[in-house]
Amino acid sequence: MRNIRLLIQYEGTRYQGWQRQESSENTIQGRLEKLLSQMCSEKIELQGSGRTDAGVHAMGQVANFHTNSSLSTEEMMEYINSYLPQDIAVIQVTEDGERFHSRLNAAGKCYQYRVWNSAVPNVFLRRYALEYPQPLDIEAMQKAASGLLGEHDFKSFTSTKKGKKSTVRRIDRIDIAQEGNLLTFTFTGNGFLYHMVRILMGTLLEVGEGKRSPDSMPELISAKNREAAGPLVPAKGLILKEVYY
Amino acid sequence: MRNIRLLIQYEGTRYQGWQRQESSENTIQGRLEKLLSQMCSEKIELQGSGRTDAGVHAMGQVANFHTNSSLSTEEMMEYINSYLPQDIAVIQVTEDGERFHSRLNAAGKCYQYRVWNSAVPNVFLRRYALEYPQPLDIEAMQKAASGLLGEHDFKSFTSTKKGKKSTVRRIDRIDIAQEGNLLTFTFTGNGFLYHMVRILMGTLLEVGEGKRSPDSMPELISAKNREAAGPLVPAKGLILKEVYY
Repeated sequence: MRNIRLLIQYEGTRYQGWQRQESSENTIQGRLEKLLSQMCSEKIELQGSGRTDAGVHAMGQVANFHTNSSLSTEEMMEYINSYLPQDIAVIQVTEDGERFHSRLNAAGKCYQYRVWNSAVPNVFLRRYALEYPQPLDIEAMQKAASGLLGEHDFKSFTSTKKGKKSTVRRIDRIDIAQEGNLLTFTFTGNGFLYHMVRILMGTLLEVGEGKRSPDSMPELISAKNREAAGPLVPAKGLILKEVYY
Repeated sequence: MRNIRLLIQYEGTRYQGWQRQESSENTIQGRLEKLLSQMCSEKIELQGSGRTDAGVHAMGQVANFHTNSSLSTEEMMEYINSYLPQDIAVIQVTEDGERFHSRLNAAGKCYQYRVWNSAVPNVFLRRYALEYPQPLDIEAMQKAASGLLGEHDFKSFTSTKKGKKSTVRRIDRIDIAQEGNLLTFTFTGNGFLYHMVRILMGTLLEVGEGKRSPDSMPELISAKNREAAGPLVPAKGLILKEVYY
């Protein structure tokens, strides 16, 4: 069987997230599997690099599926994009080795979170950035971010309750870029737990507002307690930029 | 009476353009006038710096209205934005001199047109850029653009049929910026005729594709004939960036 790899872009606004659900037709994976099964005339299971939650966007989600189809990758790309709704697009189709697995082989990921830091609305960013009118101390947030780098148990920063799976992850970089009122936080690491980027953001914004010390990150990590961290910020500011292999 | 000036942002996708129409509730001017009349408890007529067509966006549309209301400009801004749909926002409210007129006093305007120059779709630009997969010669377009600068009769570049009003305008700058596959054309001038930017764009894209000589602009201007110019490109790539006073 052939192993086909897709690079996928989507605006998450209208969807119940990546993962197929029996109760909802409106997931990215569900939409794609339906379309791929139709294209290949066989039941297709699409494996994504990871889930994205309802409302989260993606520039570079990666997924793969096995098929007996003899269509070329060019034919597949054309077919898929001609049937997909305008808020999902496949931007690359390649044939990969038999053993490639989009989730298990992922070596790292890059997420961005955008904040529109102004009391004045921005019509063009309303779907892609969190409106946050309070003044933010960027240096303080940068200092706090540096305290999050490295390999740690990030249990304080995830909503998962079950205790079996490892909550140890490595964050390699957190960059904060300012362009006028738009702040872009870029997180790069070997993997991120459920809700982790959004809870990290809620925590950094509290630091930016002066509600939390920029030096408190090591302590917060040691707490291994979700209650110790900041709030979960809305999904719409989050985008999966890239998956590394 | 007070003369109130608004700086307005909108995503044009859902609207039948700026100008109030009896047949449609769905215009930017119509929506704003209804809301302002409600806010001021008197019938408000809102004067825009110019019309934008159905589907055209604005970052900095300017408009003004006269009122007896005693609300502060801060109160007005809060009221307006709390009732406007999310795709329209007022980003500044100021009180201006009695004689300020947003259209008659406009000294110039800046428009941008965006082109996504790739065969691969871009989900995030689908409402804001024209998809144009054909390879484009940017140097040729830049050369053609330089032949459009200055004061000319731009009759070849407008859809207006009536011959009474002057079709002489001055273009001060046309900048073409490339950022990956995204091309941004910025037009600055003392004013633009009906459909002018979109016909200029259709013409420049023909030059970019090699269908038209980059040296042919002076001749095309002299023709004073709409048939001589390129096609009208779609509205969604166009945005009114700024009005100068």
